[in-house]
Amino acid sequence: MDAMLENSVFSCFVFYSILLILKMYTMAVITGQVRLRKKAFANPEDAERHGGAQFCRTDPYVERCRRAHLNDLENILPFFFLGAIYSMTGPSLVIAQAHFLIFFLGRIIHSAAYLFALKPPTRSLAYTIAQVPCISMAIQILLTVGF
Amino acid sequence: MDAMLENSVFSCFVFYSILLILKMYTMAVITGQVRLRKKAFANPEDAERHGGAQFCRTDPYVERCRRAHLNDLENILPFFFLGAIYSMTGPSLVIAQAHFLIFFLGRIIHSAAYLFALKPPTRSLAYTIAQVPCISMAIQILLTVGF
Amino acid sequence: MDAMLENSVFSCFVFYSILLILKMYTMAVITGQVRLRKKAFANPEDAERHGGAQFCRTDPYVERCRRAHLNDLENILPFFFLGAIYSMTGPSLVIAQAHFLIFFLGRIIHSAAYLFALKPPTRSLAYTIAQVPCISMAIQILLTVGF
Repeated sequence: MDAMLENSVFSCFVFYSILLILKMYTMAVITGQVRLRKKAFANPEDAERHGGAQFCRTDPYVERCRRAHLNDLENILPFFFLGAIYSMTGPSLVIAQAHFLIFFLGRIIHSAAYLFALKPPTRSLAYTIAQVPCISMAIQILLTVGF
Repeated sequence: MDAMLENSVFSCFVFYSILLILKMYTMAVITGQVRLRKKAFANPEDAERHGGAQFCRTDPYVERCRRAHLNDLENILPFFFLGAIYSMTGPSLVIAQAHFLIFFLGRIIHSAAYLFALKPPTRSLAYTIAQVPCISMAIQILLTVGF
Repeated sequence: MDAMLENSVFSCFVFYSILLILKMYTMAVITGQVRLRKKAFANPEDAERHGGAQFCRTDPYVERCRRAHLNDLENILPFFFLGAIYSMTGPSLVIAQAHFLIFFLGRIIHSAAYLFALKPPTRSLAYTIAQVPCISMAIQILLTVGF
């Protein structure tokens, strides 16, 4: 199995994927910290522990963090599948690196645009740019498996 | 690594998986289009850009699209794992194809039933039918790794 | 491909992963049962079928089940990627088993703590303990691919 990690395209893919997983984990930590700071908890037992039942409430910024995180699940998790299979299709290293890097940067900018409420269409542009390599990989995989 | 894509079962699995990823991406596009048409945005900055703060609001059909998309995440993403591992257990091609095709059709019908609010129990039936090959694959994998 | 499943670390990882997929499916079943019992449906067509439009409503316990399920998506799905790649880095079997088992137990306790509203910080402690092997695997993978 080690042979897979010695493949340059696959190990490049793995590198960016792990960074994106750490980025997603960071979203969860940020959401938790905002809940504590804003005193806005989803569960009564958490609210009770941090001051009282009145703190079981929604907060606009907590909801923003949650939307950013959910958008990651919708886009980054399918990338793990696409990138792994795409790496098996024998792409050139430079082109593959471009795919992974564009996706990675697009998703980092997407999260920043979400969390800092940057002026539209920054966030949707970052989302769209990150989708381009995904659609490209999807097409290349379909061509390889004989669509 | 190319050897994996030359395996008929695995490439059949990859084919349906990529179609399902494109289907999930379509859910996101539909949600975005409905937000624009209904003028119902989740973020104040998006509402401001499209007419004013009053359009930062929820809409029943946007919420329906979001639920359909979330249900995909809950079911299609685990299928990517199950299908990949199941392909490694050496199933017969015809039986494997039946597993993947039933899941694929079940999920397509599930999305259609959700988006068009088809008469119950169409949607829950499609969900249940799509779960059958998943449970079957899970059991066969557990038997292979020596449960 | 069968060779991967004969690798002890990988098959141990697959074993716990399949159990966690079955656990996630159980969350969906529980949510559905609670919706029926509490008569709290997300879709008007479901409410109509089960007594009338007034049952298209939210319920605190249904929302709790949904949060527990979403937390699984945020944490268990990335584990499938991390565990698979980590298995390729050639870890010792005992250490790898410890990683997988700690994650597995942490997530089981997390779900129990969520569904039974156990006294804080049980749930967040279970979440944190389950994250430890994930961060450990992420670091070991980055070291292997030459961070």
